[in-house]
Amino acid sequence: MLYHAVPWEGHTTNSFCYYASRMPVQSSSRVAALRNVATRLRIDSVLSTSEAGSGHPTSCASAAEIVAALFFSEMRYDPRNPQNPDNDRFVLSKGHAAPILYSAWAEVGLLTRDDLLTLRRIDSDLEGHPTPRLSFVDVATGSLGQGICAALGSALNARRIKSDYRTYVLLGDGESAEGSVWEAAEAAVHEGLESLCGITDVNGLGQSGPSIWNHDMDAYASKWRAFGWHAVVIDGHDVTAILDAFEQARRTKGQPTMVLARTLKGKGISIAEGKSGWHGKAFKKGPELDGVLKELQSQLLPEEEPAQLPDGPRTQRDRSRPAAPPKKGTVGTPAYTLGDSVATREAYGAALAKLGDGDDRIVALDGDVKNSTFSEKFEEKHRDRFVQNFIAEQVMIGSAMGLAARGSIPFPSTFAAFLTRAYDFIRMACISNVNIKMAGSHAGVSIGEDGPSQMALEDLAMMRAQPNMTVLYPCDAMSTERLLELMAYHPGPAYMRTSRPKTPVIYGPDEKFAIGGLKILRESTKDAATVIGGGITVFEALKAYDQLQKIGISVRVIDLYSLQPIDSRSLLRCARETKRIITVEDHYATGGIGDAVAGCVAGSGFVVERLCVREIPRSGTPEQLVDRYGISSRHIVAAVTA
Amino acid sequence: MLYHAVPWEGHTTNSFCYYASRMPVQSSSRVAALRNVATRLRIDSVLSTSEAGSGHPTSCASAAEIVAALFFSEMRYDPRNPQNPDNDRFVLSKGHAAPILYSAWAEVGLLTRDDLLTLRRIDSDLEGHPTPRLSFVDVATGSLGQGICAALGSALNARRIKSDYRTYVLLGDGESAEGSVWEAAEAAVHEGLESLCGITDVNGLGQSGPSIWNHDMDAYASKWRAFGWHAVVIDGHDVTAILDAFEQARRTKGQPTMVLARTLKGKGISIAEGKSGWHGKAFKKGPELDGVLKELQSQLLPEEEPAQLPDGPRTQRDRSRPAAPPKKGTVGTPAYTLGDSVATREAYGAALAKLGDGDDRIVALDGDVKNSTFSEKFEEKHRDRFVQNFIAEQVMIGSAMGLAARGSIPFPSTFAAFLTRAYDFIRMACISNVNIKMAGSHAGVSIGEDGPSQMALEDLAMMRAQPNMTVLYPCDAMSTERLLELMAYHPGPAYMRTSRPKTPVIYGPDEKFAIGGLKILRESTKDAATVIGGGITVFEALKAYDQLQKIGISVRVIDLYSLQPIDSRSLLRCARETKRIITVEDHYATGGIGDAVAGCVAGSGFVVERLCVREIPRSGTPEQLVDRYGISSRHIVAAVTA
Repeated sequence: MLYHAVPWEGHTTNSFCYYASRMPVQSSSRVAALRNVATRLRIDSVLSTSEAGSGHPTSCASAAEIVAALFFSEMRYDPRNPQNPDNDRFVLSKGHAAPILYSAWAEVGLLTRDDLLTLRRIDSDLEGHPTPRLSFVDVATGSLGQGICAALGSALNARRIKSDYRTYVLLGDGESAEGSVWEAAEAAVHEGLESLCGITDVNGLGQSGPSIWNHDMDAYASKWRAFGWHAVVIDGHDVTAILDAFEQARRTKGQPTMVLARTLKGKGISIAEGKSGWHGKAFKKGPELDGVLKELQSQLLPEEEPAQLPDGPRTQRDRSRPAAPPKKGTVGTPAYTLGDSVATREAYGAALAKLGDGDDRIVALDGDVKNSTFSEKFEEKHRDRFVQNFIAEQVMIGSAMGLAARGSIPFPSTFAAFLTRAYDFIRMACISNVNIKMAGSHAGVSIGEDGPSQMALEDLAMMRAQPNMTVLYPCDAMSTERLLELMAYHPGPAYMRTSRPKTPVIYGPDEKFAIGGLKILRESTKDAATVIGGGITVFEALKAYDQLQKIGISVRVIDLYSLQPIDSRSLLRCARETKRIITVEDHYATGGIGDAVAGCVAGSGFVVERLCVREIPRSGTPEQLVDRYGISSRHIVAAVTA
Repeated sequence: MLYHAVPWEGHTTNSFCYYASRMPVQSSSRVAALRNVATRLRIDSVLSTSEAGSGHPTSCASAAEIVAALFFSEMRYDPRNPQNPDNDRFVLSKGHAAPILYSAWAEVGLLTRDDLLTLRRIDSDLEGHPTPRLSFVDVATGSLGQGICAALGSALNARRIKSDYRTYVLLGDGESAEGSVWEAAEAAVHEGLESLCGITDVNGLGQSGPSIWNHDMDAYASKWRAFGWHAVVIDGHDVTAILDAFEQARRTKGQPTMVLARTLKGKGISIAEGKSGWHGKAFKKGPELDGVLKELQSQLLPEEEPAQLPDGPRTQRDRSRPAAPPKKGTVGTPAYTLGDSVATREAYGAALAKLGDGDDRIVALDGDVKNSTFSEKFEEKHRDRFVQNFIAEQVMIGSAMGLAARGSIPFPSTFAAFLTRAYDFIRMACISNVNIKMAGSHAGVSIGEDGPSQMALEDLAMMRAQPNMTVLYPCDAMSTERLLELMAYHPGPAYMRTSRPKTPVIYGPDEKFAIGGLKILRESTKDAATVIGGGITVFEALKAYDQLQKIGISVRVIDLYSLQPIDSRSLLRCARETKRIITVEDHYATGGIGDAVAGCVAGSGFVVERLCVREIPRSGTPEQLVDRYGISSRHIVAAVTA
């Protein structure tokens, strides 16, 4: 017990100690113990991938000493409760090295070695890449360059909950080519996140050849330093050097640290070590595997003391705050009067600010458009929970994933068009099933003169494609506020689409909304058709209603504010009662309101007539564009009377 | 005529001179002339945005000297023919400064000043952000961080066509936060693109506040230098400094140059210069505008000689090559035998390599998965037209946009799941309507053990949402080769989805395919249903057919290899003849085959029964997953017999 002032055995989760100023005592026996952990991690990674018949044992082997040092010396966490809120966090950004993560938790004792042999099986949660089906995984990784963004979110959460847990993230050298890594680099420095420590496993080899900077350690170090990180270059197989680097990281104040570890892919396995052609290949059972195992086992050193379990979580949080269960916020009674003219994007900002009053889990993230999305209203009241990501949408969504995984309720927002920039992150957030609440403003051609680059016309398609995504599209300020409150506490990922133009308030303060609901705004027993809109087209439908009334035609008008889930039953009832269904949307033809409604009513033989944007649009006034692209009241009247 | 050895008037497009070694002669009268151009660009930008009532005059004002120096001193191009293949290229990555681009072309003489006053009008091609509706715009910009990727593609094209045209790209400081900028930074250095010159207009202010590094010029320079660029820091309003920087860039060999220009937003307009709160605001007509114009006009200097038009394109290309019209390639007669087992991803690589033999416009781009997508087959034969982007999907698609805009036919490919990373780039490629031909491999749960992070289950939704995107999904090697050839020469953006598992070859060498076609594989007069598959599910449908035959039930089986455009007529005929339509797809419920078919047949009252992946999947063998998620032959049989 040279290193730990208090042995693990004496701990309970309620009696933690703080080790920030402890001195490293890297005795040779301690180093030997960690080297043996590394060797066992290699053996387990090889065994599990060979049993699975696929996987990435050589990408595990390069990281073995790093992972051993993290799990058995550096990190402070409760090995029996990976979700303790004060645990140090570990994110495996190079998710294809999943077997070494699983092996580490087996070495810790949370998994058995039999568990490891279920790797990649359909009946096992030890998937090919880590997912939060496992208690010790915060966010799914496997799409490279995302883990470091999530780790940044985890570090932001530590600041929010006033915990001094640290966040460690292991990257591959190959993924350093992803722009999102550099978005995270700049964001972490902007936030001064000294609790964030990255380790890049520079094994020099990508999937199909050398990685972009191969083993040029200076190419990595100069970049991280230029971005403002404390960068330490080490031999990633030298346990003492690794421990020293972590010590340096802990002592570094005001900036994050990147440990750049020069390693060899397949380290310790002579047939693969440092060689191309071994990426993502399990060793074949039989002589090949036997030889690898024999070689690795021969690397085990005589052990004077066993490797040590962690001391428990890094520290207690501020105990002056009572440990109350999280409190929900509320938007109260929004102060709108029927007929007020308010953009839904503006109501979004107002509601978010109010929700943040009552719930300190709410965090807002922006991509330098806070004065367009109105998230600035949240910033004005809750500056400490507002994150400015500048024009970097990937890290905005990626860090929101990490925040959500640690208990925050993040609301990243930007122009809906620019959420396309982060679609891979949104995809992974859905695989992670985290409580990320996105808002996209400036939907559709109704933004007007800025032109197509700023118009979201595929966002509903993109969001609805994810099976566990909630998709909301309010048309007025009142419904925006109500839906925002519902969205905040509805489990899982959610998206709200807001619009640029001001629209009249049509709902009173007592109107009730539900995830999966809709509103029938006009209805009679003699309706000739049901016209279904969302957002600004609800008002085109209402205008059409008035015009049609003048010529003696009644139509039913629906505000489809919840696209996913969707109220199929009401839609079907309306289809049966009015025989005709017309959808009208400020969105391309595919994946939006038309498809959503068709999916509900087609089963009963009803046809959906669709008004939508069918070509790449151009600049013009909102009114001109709404009309030119066929979604104005005039087109609705024409469709009804056709 | 101090600068130009040959005056513009003496030129024709066929008598160019080469100026690489000329010396700058920056007389005071020449500098004064350029300063006056800059002032006129400011005036025109202010006038056009005030006339439009919206736009970004202050973002134009900061860049005025830079643009003046580029268009009237640095760049070599034919002012009467912006599309001359040897023209130097200019990409306005900060697309919101569009008015200054239009003003520059008015100053050149390609537009009139009356044209400028049509800015942002529905009847004008001078849109809020530049699009290729204009002859002098290569790719649409306005989603920040993309223009530099396209510029890289333009520079790659220069190398391909052996032209020494140079490519200039103007970035904003705000967009430097986008990770894609750093992807472009590393890719340009990897390719040693000395013909690429970036200029960052560091005006210090973003939309909602200071830009990420404000006016800290060293923060920019250290990063660009760390990424391997030659970086020059200048006062961006000092014409002599700008010209010197361009001269340095031209003399810099083996690496690209970034000119970091410290500027003031709203320069020259005292009410706005260097002040927050003026982003994206036109000056109000009346006293405000009048004051601004008066102030700008007072900055015009006495002019001894006018600003000079460019000398024409930089140089002639290698005239030893006959100026033959572009030749199309062909896949010939693919050497597959019926029943061969070949993955469509492998056939993709083989076909692309053959196509490249006959057409030197074909370029392949990879994101370090060439041995999975089989684009390595192209690299083996055409190393000089293979671009390795490492794990950086945004710059892969972005540079493909630039390549396509300059006449190449780029085929970027990666795992289909990772094309989600570049969705914003794909969106802008569609707005640009460029000939970019994407391929995504490893579609769906049929990839097996790697798990959901590697499975594309929303790619069809994402691609079909774009109205001008062609979407193809071959099921066997023969159709892959034929469709790849068709896709290469079909105008506009296109996407091919390929699969990981080997599938049997079912088409012979004489089988004909068409964009917008389908194949009816089984058909009889007594079919109880039409089963429509794509990719691997075609084979599940064929298996179901065999099983159903045994119990006396016939079904029609369709290979829907073209999803967009789609053969509605044939689908409708089959619906009418068999009464029932069942779709089966390795894709989520929304936006894929089911929605595509429903869109065709719903109009006639037919209902589509859908088999698809309805939840986030997990790891397992391909067979297990295809069955677990409801898209195997067993489920088809159950659906038919239900």
